[in-house]
Amino acid sequence: MEIEIATIGGYEEVGRQMTAVRAGDDVVIFDMGLNLSKVLLHDNVETEKLHSLDLIDMGAIPDDRVMSDLEGDVKAIVPTHGHLDHIGAISKLAHRYSAPIVASPFTIELVKQQIQGEEKFGVENDLMKMEAGETMQLGDEVELEFVNVTHSIIDAINPVVHTPEGAIVYGLDKRMDYSPVLGDPIDMKRFREIGREGNGVLAYIEDCTNAGRKGRTPSESVARRHLKDVLYSVQDYDGGIVATTFSSHIARVKSLVEFAQDIDRTPVLLGRSMEKYSGTAERLNFVDFPEDMGMFGHRKSVDRTFKRIMKEGKENYLPIVTGHQGEPRAMLTRMGRGETPYQLEDGDKVVFSARVIPEPTNEGQRYQSERLLKMQGARIFDDVHVSGHLREEGHYEMLDTLQPQHVIPAHQNMKGYAPYVDLCESQGYRLGRDLHATRNGNLIQLVD
Amino acid sequence: MEIEIATIGGYEEVGRQMTAVRAGDDVVIFDMGLNLSKVLLHDNVETEKLHSLDLIDMGAIPDDRVMSDLEGDVKAIVPTHGHLDHIGAISKLAHRYSAPIVASPFTIELVKQQIQGEEKFGVENDLMKMEAGETMQLGDEVELEFVNVTHSIIDAINPVVHTPEGAIVYGLDKRMDYSPVLGDPIDMKRFREIGREGNGVLAYIEDCTNAGRKGRTPSESVARRHLKDVLYSVQDYDGGIVATTFSSHIARVKSLVEFAQDIDRTPVLLGRSMEKYSGTAERLNFVDFPEDMGMFGHRKSVDRTFKRIMKEGKENYLPIVTGHQGEPRAMLTRMGRGETPYQLEDGDKVVFSARVIPEPTNEGQRYQSERLLKMQGARIFDDVHVSGHLREEGHYEMLDTLQPQHVIPAHQNMKGYAPYVDLCESQGYRLGRDLHATRNGNLIQLVD
Amino acid sequence: MEIEIATIGGYEEVGRQMTAVRAGDDVVIFDMGLNLSKVLLHDNVETEKLHSLDLIDMGAIPDDRVMSDLEGDVKAIVPTHGHLDHIGAISKLAHRYSAPIVASPFTIELVKQQIQGEEKFGVENDLMKMEAGETMQLGDEVELEFVNVTHSIIDAINPVVHTPEGAIVYGLDKRMDYSPVLGDPIDMKRFREIGREGNGVLAYIEDCTNAGRKGRTPSESVARRHLKDVLYSVQDYDGGIVATTFSSHIARVKSLVEFAQDIDRTPVLLGRSMEKYSGTAERLNFVDFPEDMGMFGHRKSVDRTFKRIMKEGKENYLPIVTGHQGEPRAMLTRMGRGETPYQLEDGDKVVFSARVIPEPTNEGQRYQSERLLKMQGARIFDDVHVSGHLREEGHYEMLDTLQPQHVIPAHQNMKGYAPYVDLCESQGYRLGRDLHATRNGNLIQLVD
Amino acid sequence: MEIEIATIGGYEEVGRQMTAVRAGDDVVIFDMGLNLSKVLLHDNVETEKLHSLDLIDMGAIPDDRVMSDLEGDVKAIVPTHGHLDHIGAISKLAHRYSAPIVASPFTIELVKQQIQGEEKFGVENDLMKMEAGETMQLGDEVELEFVNVTHSIIDAINPVVHTPEGAIVYGLDKRMDYSPVLGDPIDMKRFREIGREGNGVLAYIEDCTNAGRKGRTPSESVARRHLKDVLYSVQDYDGGIVATTFSSHIARVKSLVEFAQDIDRTPVLLGRSMEKYSGTAERLNFVDFPEDMGMFGHRKSVDRTFKRIMKEGKENYLPIVTGHQGEPRAMLTRMGRGETPYQLEDGDKVVFSARVIPEPTNEGQRYQSERLLKMQGARIFDDVHVSGHLREEGHYEMLDTLQPQHVIPAHQNMKGYAPYVDLCESQGYRLGRDLHATRNGNLIQLVD
Repeated sequence: MEIEIATIGGYEEVGRQMTAVRAGDDVVIFDMGLNLSKVLLHDNVETEKLHSLDLIDMGAIPDDRVMSDLEGDVKAIVPTHGHLDHIGAISKLAHRYSAPIVASPFTIELVKQQIQGEEKFGVENDLMKMEAGETMQLGDEVELEFVNVTHSIIDAINPVVHTPEGAIVYGLDKRMDYSPVLGDPIDMKRFREIGREGNGVLAYIEDCTNAGRKGRTPSESVARRHLKDVLYSVQDYDGGIVATTFSSHIARVKSLVEFAQDIDRTPVLLGRSMEKYSGTAERLNFVDFPEDMGMFGHRKSVDRTFKRIMKEGKENYLPIVTGHQGEPRAMLTRMGRGETPYQLEDGDKVVFSARVIPEPTNEGQRYQSERLLKMQGARIFDDVHVSGHLREEGHYEMLDTLQPQHVIPAHQNMKGYAPYVDLCESQGYRLGRDLHATRNGNLIQLVD
Repeated sequence: MEIEIATIGGYEEVGRQMTAVRAGDDVVIFDMGLNLSKVLLHDNVETEKLHSLDLIDMGAIPDDRVMSDLEGDVKAIVPTHGHLDHIGAISKLAHRYSAPIVASPFTIELVKQQIQGEEKFGVENDLMKMEAGETMQLGDEVELEFVNVTHSIIDAINPVVHTPEGAIVYGLDKRMDYSPVLGDPIDMKRFREIGREGNGVLAYIEDCTNAGRKGRTPSESVARRHLKDVLYSVQDYDGGIVATTFSSHIARVKSLVEFAQDIDRTPVLLGRSMEKYSGTAERLNFVDFPEDMGMFGHRKSVDRTFKRIMKEGKENYLPIVTGHQGEPRAMLTRMGRGETPYQLEDGDKVVFSARVIPEPTNEGQRYQSERLLKMQGARIFDDVHVSGHLREEGHYEMLDTLQPQHVIPAHQNMKGYAPYVDLCESQGYRLGRDLHATRNGNLIQLVD
Repeated sequence: MEIEIATIGGYEEVGRQMTAVRAGDDVVIFDMGLNLSKVLLHDNVETEKLHSLDLIDMGAIPDDRVMSDLEGDVKAIVPTHGHLDHIGAISKLAHRYSAPIVASPFTIELVKQQIQGEEKFGVENDLMKMEAGETMQLGDEVELEFVNVTHSIIDAINPVVHTPEGAIVYGLDKRMDYSPVLGDPIDMKRFREIGREGNGVLAYIEDCTNAGRKGRTPSESVARRHLKDVLYSVQDYDGGIVATTFSSHIARVKSLVEFAQDIDRTPVLLGRSMEKYSGTAERLNFVDFPEDMGMFGHRKSVDRTFKRIMKEGKENYLPIVTGHQGEPRAMLTRMGRGETPYQLEDGDKVVFSARVIPEPTNEGQRYQSERLLKMQGARIFDDVHVSGHLREEGHYEMLDTLQPQHVIPAHQNMKGYAPYVDLCESQGYRLGRDLHATRNGNLIQLVD
Repeated sequence: MEIEIATIGGYEEVGRQMTAVRAGDDVVIFDMGLNLSKVLLHDNVETEKLHSLDLIDMGAIPDDRVMSDLEGDVKAIVPTHGHLDHIGAISKLAHRYSAPIVASPFTIELVKQQIQGEEKFGVENDLMKMEAGETMQLGDEVELEFVNVTHSIIDAINPVVHTPEGAIVYGLDKRMDYSPVLGDPIDMKRFREIGREGNGVLAYIEDCTNAGRKGRTPSESVARRHLKDVLYSVQDYDGGIVATTFSSHIARVKSLVEFAQDIDRTPVLLGRSMEKYSGTAERLNFVDFPEDMGMFGHRKSVDRTFKRIMKEGKENYLPIVTGHQGEPRAMLTRMGRGETPYQLEDGDKVVFSARVIPEPTNEGQRYQSERLLKMQGARIFDDVHVSGHLREEGHYEMLDTLQPQHVIPAHQNMKGYAPYVDLCESQGYRLGRDLHATRNGNLIQLVD
């Protein structure tokens, strides 16, 4: 059976991930993501209203023209988890393929919201939920399986395409977490089986984000322990404490909520995306927040909440807000500029349970945001965080576990591939033979 | 009563700490430390054999000539904890003063060993043990008290001199740890009392090492949780695992030992200073190591142990060795160069539970050491560590707790003082009035 | 005679410089500057319309309240050169003092324009021109002298106040340039005389911007040679070449203009501040630009010029534009966003004859600007520049030349002072004795 | 005609360069270099005494086993210039090939010395001089040509193999210098012709060292202008001035010598490699040093010279010495440690006309060296230097000039290739099609 892989997007950048696997006549697409930083370069762009071709020109969404070189039928579009760089282009591209969108329940829900927000295209693909551990027939001899992985968002999976020639494992976006705060540990047992059953693993597509970092990405429970240390240490403070983190990072939000209660503060989630992700997670029973916990997205309700907090006493609340990257319009930045009813005072604490994404634009915005916060007397706690991506040791372990015939680095540019290429070569792979450093828009023929 | 402070060493550098406080006729000296990096600049220097004046000229030990301007009798020499930058010059300078050396039990023991190693001077000062919480009369109206603090070595204290004019608190080398792995939490309650009793705090001398870092130094228990994550993650590995950390960091060594056992490996401590510090701590009952745990310092016994490990299987052991900074003669560096019987193999793990001290010399040596280790196939886990020094938020809290009339930054150069000066000014202090950025060899008259 | 120095602004930051010297009853004020970055933190602030007190609160202009503690009459307000951090607050503060503004001709002209732009206050102080080398009587025994120095703007001077107790030299903002491209070399001969005549130098106030950088700041002629290398290397290119630099840096603009002609391109200056500074310099005969060289400030005329360039061929022009820091509204940034009629094409060259001011906000904006330019195919040449501030070796030389009794570091925060303090101490000064690390709002009594 | 390229060494590192080109039956080898940093990892290694296989195992010299897969006869071994990473393995590997070593006159001389120093192998290959601009027949239809280029060593060339299928240009180690201080400008005219004659350029092998740096590498004349500024600025200093640079950088040494004379100091070259390179260059008439200028290599004569300098007055001399990277045994480091008769005093100047090679080992050593020099009062001038390797703009220009069908990045690891890959792709090349990011030990079949 012919096996081909189209590396459509995310092979020259982080963002706008998209990959297609053809096994015989059956094609499955993994991810259709957005490169947000390309959008933000342009002032006042509303992606909801833009046409695909313009977004492709901007480098914001995958250029899927290579799909026309791929003979076969698309049987499924499979976003691996709910981050925008993996689902953000679905509303722009999915309608071109007559195939269902298959994803884990939380991811499906986020895709649904994404599609509802779209103003240009009507996306009417079926939305199918499939849990980690489940499988789905794509063709006579081709099957799709979801393996549970751990990442900085819940309900993330790694999809596997089983073919007579071996399995193709799409390994993007995970860390090896044996004690995640929410959900199950990564299913290394199943990966080990896949590495050994039938013809083993034909190809492994790997996320190189942290490939150059030594050691192991710590478990979410390490971040949780760190966060606990921070929040417990200020439990006697009788002024304002504010926290921010990635809105989609439900496990972290959960930890924040719990420690808020431990130190006798009422947690409240504020900001459009805070409400969106946590609300969705709660509705789908992924997380159990306190019954009366407020979540507010619209600016008016947020400001009303802030007024109430000011009235009842800042010392009774822990607002968990958007703005960890210093985004100019996020809640925390507005607080720094004094645009909300919440008055920061000398000694108030602001906890960034997030890392600045290391790019000068973010660094500049975050710096501005911190300066504004400090001018009002706030004290910054930063980097209370661990990454969601494998480091060096995790990569060694995945190779050892899966023993893939071919390896395809992804989710980076060439510079980002470099340490992973070295790592693979130290394990016997050879660039250009069974290790494929590739680019957007390429086809890799694995079996012909 | 006249109160004067002599800032003798460690006010232009990290290292060779020494400060004297005169209250009326009674003088107490805090710390007599060594600046090791000044020694290492010179090849083949053996400090044991050098005269004080040469070491002063090299900038390696405090220049205590300002002591002759200080009228009064030295009543006690008080090292605050057992790190070399606080006790390393005792053997070179203490004999000039006819006063006992007063310190916590663990510190006294290390001072004793320091004196025994000295080849140039006979130091015969009395060695007196005093526990945290205890006090000692220095003069009619002057009393010395030890307050328990938490640092990266056990049995650290902050000494306080009580005078009719108020207390002088010598605050060097601590973090605010409420859940240390060994010993009691920092005694903030007592600091709060000292800040409020009698005339309050006249002067506070503060360690500025991390003054420019945002937020709070995490508890040792956060490092422990991180370390656990690392070691548990490799529990199925059937080859060599080696760890290194600061030898004097008994709490960390204890965590390493315990997690070694958890993953079914016999811990063994190797290297001269590993044996020294851990042996001393165990003898004094500060820590309870497994009865049969080996500790070996002499190269011959170390190599014999390595031979045994190779014979019985590396997978059964976890050697905890010296060499976290890539010191050329330390055990781990020797292992990297293949100079020991321990054979590193592809995939073996080396855990640095330490941070590179950020200075180009260390960075160069550590880099060389890691390259050698990697050439043999080792995989590096680094930065499994937290600092022992207060960051920004701890400094705010100490000022709030003690409410000192005068503040004296220490344990840094002018550049290192800078963020602490800003911090104090944000709390109402004013440089040159009640905030004293000073230099080695100065006298500060607080009450005349 | 009593001598006092008030360190009003620029002693905790770079920006909003202001210092007053009192000699007996005569007071002279040096600089009244603006801290632009404080203004930019706030959206949509128009400084022209703001009241002094609001600007003081923002930290944008000097807080001159300490002036009320200074007995004596202000006899002159002396801006040392035309940069905004030295003259930008004159329109907000000068009217409070009934004294003339005395400055070199180019600086006076810029002050005049500054005052004309002011919308809140009517500043009616006399404007007096005084050339380098000239003197002016301030009181019976007190005289003001201007010494010629070299900086990144023309007609910069260091003012000296001669008193019976010795000279006070205000040394801000210079480099030691013996072959500047415009104007005379620094007058080290006069400094040497001042160091030796009468009672010598009582106090020297020094600019610490580059105190921590090794060696010597290169001459402007080194930057010119570098720039020549860059522009000559692209002389065969037949597309667009664009250059940007500090608008006030007339010597650099002159070099750009000359090399443009050498490679057969018509230079044209575009952008509001380009027109302002170069126009002023030309009108005052400081520089001789080609007679027909265009300078356009208003957006309309700029765009008209761009249209003409596009029509007549980009290969015939070298636009010299604003935007070297990536300022969002500057000309080059607009070109990057495609908002001007000038079309960048693949291979076009953009020369940044400037350095990014090392602060995350600028770095972020400049990064954005470069990304936009590159997306259109432009190729960036950066850092074709030398600083206008003394490095280490210049500081040594000034101390040796003036042999001041007292030294007062300025133009930095405490961290920026640190290397200069070390340097002075290596030359025998002592912090707190004759070396005064001070803060905004202090009075230093030198003779009483 | 079959055309193959073997990428033997320097495709995963900087150092141990070696590449072979086969055109039909004729093979030519470019470079046989040493990776010095691999040697220095090991203590006390003397490469002169080591066997090739051990050096290959250490990664110190190219692993040329792939040569056995290359059918055809080696007709010439062509080192492109005299740096060790290009000629340092000749004494270990050349004897395996019965072919002459063909190089420019200066390079040949250095190869000869290299061979004479070898203690393990007898290398007896013919040494043939060939000038830039000359050609040599390798086979019936295959010709070798040398094109003059500019680099940080004199007499550097880029070899070109002319075949019926087009030219293969080996482009390692050059900058585009139109006003070099010694020798002719780069011969871009000839490159342009080669790009257009016959079948044009089949393949171009490019040095990626600085591919990620914006703009253009400045001409050596820019470094010269900078150096002049530094040395002229200290012409009135009446103490010691010492300079250091790359010994093989004859143009820089020449500038140092000339400026020494301009400021009335006698230049003298000290250190083994200073004598070697400059002596060779003078003997071959590449440079014209003052007749009586001393050059001393042996430690005894160096020390004798230092004694004479001390006696006759340091103010009369400018020693130009080895040690720019802080190498522990180099002359300047010995001076820093006070091991030579030359006494540094407070205020003496040390000029590093070199850049620290950015690797932690060098950075650590250089830092140590500077600290030692400063402890003796020396003042450091650093980075008076420009690189010898093309930056971004030079790469664009070479592609435009040669218009090669295939491009092969070299002289870097994968991370170093990354920006060059991006650059080539922006010019229409495509990774894996006509852009070959390869590794040591590969064969690339261009025509079969």
